[in-house]
Amino acid sequence: MDERAALALLEDELEPVGDDAAVVDDLVITTDMLHERTDFPAGTTRYTAGWRSVGASLSDVAAMGAEATAAVAAYAAPEFDREELLEFVRGATDVCERVGAEYVGGDLDDHQEFTVTTTAIGRTDDPVPRSGAEPGDLVCVTGTLGRSAAALELFERGARDGDAVEGDADALERANDCFCFEPRVAAGRALAPHATALMDSSDGLARSLHQLAAASDCGFAIESAPIPVSETLQDLVDDETEVLERATTFGEDFELVATVPDDALEAVRSAIDVELSVLGTVTDPAAGVTLDGDELEDCGYTHGE
Amino acid sequence: MDERAALALLEDELEPVGDDAAVVDDLVITTDMLHERTDFPAGTTRYTAGWRSVGASLSDVAAMGAEATAAVAAYAAPEFDREELLEFVRGATDVCERVGAEYVGGDLDDHQEFTVTTTAIGRTDDPVPRSGAEPGDLVCVTGTLGRSAAALELFERGARDGDAVEGDADALERANDCFCFEPRVAAGRALAPHATALMDSSDGLARSLHQLAAASDCGFAIESAPIPVSETLQDLVDDETEVLERATTFGEDFELVATVPDDALEAVRSAIDVELSVLGTVTDPAAGVTLDGDELEDCGYTHGE
Repeated sequence: MDERAALALLEDELEPVGDDAAVVDDLVITTDMLHERTDFPAGTTRYTAGWRSVGASLSDVAAMGAEATAAVAAYAAPEFDREELLEFVRGATDVCERVGAEYVGGDLDDHQEFTVTTTAIGRTDDPVPRSGAEPGDLVCVTGTLGRSAAALELFERGARDGDAVEGDADALERANDCFCFEPRVAAGRALAPHATALMDSSDGLARSLHQLAAASDCGFAIESAPIPVSETLQDLVDDETEVLERATTFGEDFELVATVPDDALEAVRSAIDVELSVLGTVTDPAAGVTLDGDELEDCGYTHGE
Repeated sequence: MDERAALALLEDELEPVGDDAAVVDDLVITTDMLHERTDFPAGTTRYTAGWRSVGASLSDVAAMGAEATAAVAAYAAPEFDREELLEFVRGATDVCERVGAEYVGGDLDDHQEFTVTTTAIGRTDDPVPRSGAEPGDLVCVTGTLGRSAAALELFERGARDGDAVEGDADALERANDCFCFEPRVAAGRALAPHATALMDSSDGLARSLHQLAAASDCGFAIESAPIPVSETLQDLVDDETEVLERATTFGEDFELVATVPDDALEAVRSAIDVELSVLGTVTDPAAGVTLDGDELEDCGYTHGE
């Protein structure tokens, strides 16, 4: 059984299911485990690892439309280097401060591979599920897509076999910058009163749309022109088709994908603190998920390979 | 830097520090990572692993005197076996139900070694810290000590090199029973209005007393006679000195260690749902931590070796 089959099994067994975070009373809670081999390319600093791993959980809180309250991390490594540990804590603390949450520490463990499990909690009286999209709603995305794909490209250029190559330090620094994303907690709060469905784009836009379509029993018709592609990715990759594919399928950008009734768009736009792009509309389920009229395949999350 | 030095470093860097769980507003949150090599002896079922790992975090919530609200787990294994995963979820769900919390799932990850990170959250308006013990208070412990030491003894008898030996299945079943402890959430709630300091005994009674002594700037004078030793441990080990040492230093029993003013003892006893043993009294810091008048060393947490 692979990880997706195992997750599907758990979703059958457990309630509540299918959203970015679980809801208990007015609390949301979410946990993620990341590890070096698949999530932190060679050249990722511990500061970035702290920011990114805690940020991923904060993004799940944002994807419920909740305020972010606090986060913890369990940090496991083969050995504990003082500077690495402090850098991790600094990254974790900074990303929490960015969204008004508190980083309140966690656990340390001894492990063969650098492994981090982060948990974030938040509060909302009115969580936004993935299941409320209605035909005619607009489908929107925050920020830009492809930042993490660009970061991976930069990590690959800046590092070979785990060691930085002389002269590529700048690529690594840019890679780390690109890899530290802003969890869209404020945007989620701005979307919450209006959005009919909400999730984050951690598995890529294409997979996110398929997940929303399954949860809401709807289809999506989106256009490629308004997809907000990271400028860094455009600078790094010449082929426009390749750029679009990475931006829509690579994932790990932690932007929010929302469906919003047409007449609420202006209210959202006036309340939100980040660019909001309208990619298309929600359709009937029979129409499937399309990009420029063609079927958009359910593929994504190929980072780190 | 070893794990204790790393933890000490984190405590210097992060606020709030030193308690069993972090406090944010009226919430408490705590996270723990456990893994096969050090925490789950050969013969531990996945049901027990689910119960025990989630229970450990619920125990930290109990140690703050809080109600337990919810728990999540990130489950990582080299491969996902359907039955193992369901057993884990069943153990995790059962231990949550036992204390009135909800198990709300978590994350799955691919890892060389079976590794679980659990996080629990709870609520209290009046968390009990480790730092309030006053000379003259009584020092009390819930339940019995040495259950996990007994479980390890049973696991060792029941398993060799990871395989159960014919005829020792009963030992493994008893080991798993012993290893599934009751998180003392209700007891923590009963203690909370009266206790001046509270923590759980996860590192053993001896180390817990030293940690309370450091946090409260006090000493402890306890007697061995009232220490509530697990009957299973007494049955398994003949040497009385050895029994006492394992009961006080092995740890992982997840009982509560509390200091309570003399005049509050009856109120606590009438409210609590478990045996509460009075081991001795809080003293001045200069008197140190003593057992039957002799210094009690700060040692513990040698499980799994």
